Amino acid sequence: MPDLRIYIGYRTVSSWSLRAWLPLTKVGVPFEETLIRYRLPEHKQRLVEISPTGKVPLLVHHRDGEEIKVWDSIAIGEYLADTFPEARLWPADPVARAFARSISAEMHNGFRALREHLPMALLERTPKTIDDPEARADIARVAEIWRQARDNWGRKDGGPWLFGHYTVADGMYAPIVTRFRTYGVTLDPICEAYMEAVCADADLKAWEAQAEIDPPQEPLIG
Amino acid sequence: MPDLRIYIGYRTVSSWSLRAWLPLTKVGVPFEETLIRYRLPEHKQRLVEISPTGKVPLLVHHRDGEEIKVWDSIAIGEYLADTFPEARLWPADPVARAFARSISAEMHNGFRALREHLPMALLERTPKTIDDPEARADIARVAEIWRQARDNWGRKDGGPWLFGHYTVADGMYAPIVTRFRTYGVTLDPICEAYMEAVCADADLKAWEAQAEIDPPQEPLIG
Repeated sequence: MPDLRIYIGYRTVSSWSLRAWLPLTKVGVPFEETLIRYRLPEHKQRLVEISPTGKVPLLVHHRDGEEIKVWDSIAIGEYLADTFPEARLWPADPVARAFARSISAEMHNGFRALREHLPMALLERTPKTIDDPEARADIARVAEIWRQARDNWGRKDGGPWLFGHYTVADGMYAPIVTRFRTYGVTLDPICEAYMEAVCADADLKAWEAQAEIDPPQEPLIG
Repeated sequence: MPDLRIYIGYRTVSSWSLRAWLPLTKVGVPFEETLIRYRLPEHKQRLVEISPTGKVPLLVHHRDGEEIKVWDSIAIGEYLADTFPEARLWPADPVARAFARSISAEMHNGFRALREHLPMALLERTPKTIDDPEARADIARVAEIWRQARDNWGRKDGGPWLFGHYTVADGMYAPIVTRFRTYGVTLDPICEAYMEAVCADADLKAWEAQAEIDPPQEPLIG
């Protein structure tokens, strides 16, 4: 039984899986992953058996003789930050840390118009004009968040991420970057540079490479 | 300027404000609160000026010469747990802590049918039959969560809360308890006992007393 296993959904569309998986890769400890093709009844059944919510992502950690289950991307991020402090998955500075947590929570329970009008389609490139006013407002808010983080902390720290080094917040916003790439959303230079860093990340590239060779998606059943 | 101030919405309906406010009361440090009557244009304008999202709840903490802003209930909960560890706002046991974080995240981004069909109406008592299958499934899931927490941790610890002593998770589920009370949802004895503890909480009672004397709600503008 592995010490650490993450259950994820279809890599092309499961944005919440990606949000949990990316910070996990940054911890730097070995882990295993199980792809749950939840549109297949037998996979869905397996998921219901192991996941308290019947959803992905789910992290299972065996530690000190106990089995620890954590579900939901933001809880997994907090769990990893708490359990592996040396990974520095939140900024150390209190103001930056509060900002990082707030924007992660904002992502977790917001941006509905953006998510509806720009659904995740990792490998597709289909530029389009975004007309919906709420989706446009969401895009502007995301850009504001990225600029504030980069201006106040990221660029001072020297690293390419929102707060310089990688944090849970970068994981939370990574699927937004891939959506902007898919639909050809262009932003200001600060945001464009951040998006380039996200897309150049070796872990995201590994996820994409696996998405390319994952079995094709099954038609939705039931 | 106070060290710690929380901006909240209408106490009768702003469930997210209550979710942040309750754990704050449990920290045991003095704080001030500002009621934002966001349906009034001048209040809404003030909120947009101070809150990065233009929403409540918002916590502003002056500490070591810095102004720290935290918004969104779950981020405020994590901030308080992190900043005031002696308040023990998460369980110490790793399995319990992972469970507490997961169910808090589940509340933060889930239970949509329950929230739609049983909207918060703190001071009302209007029992009704819940027919919607998704809302019924949400109610059943909430009851399962409460039973698991009470069975595995709460009752062993001896306190009345989900994990014995008060945690962020109790704050996250408090508005669900008030909804069940409003609409007359009855559950098993374990859950009923938990709901009684929530309703008997002096801090919730103080919130309710203030809700009774808050100015009546303005009609929705714009």
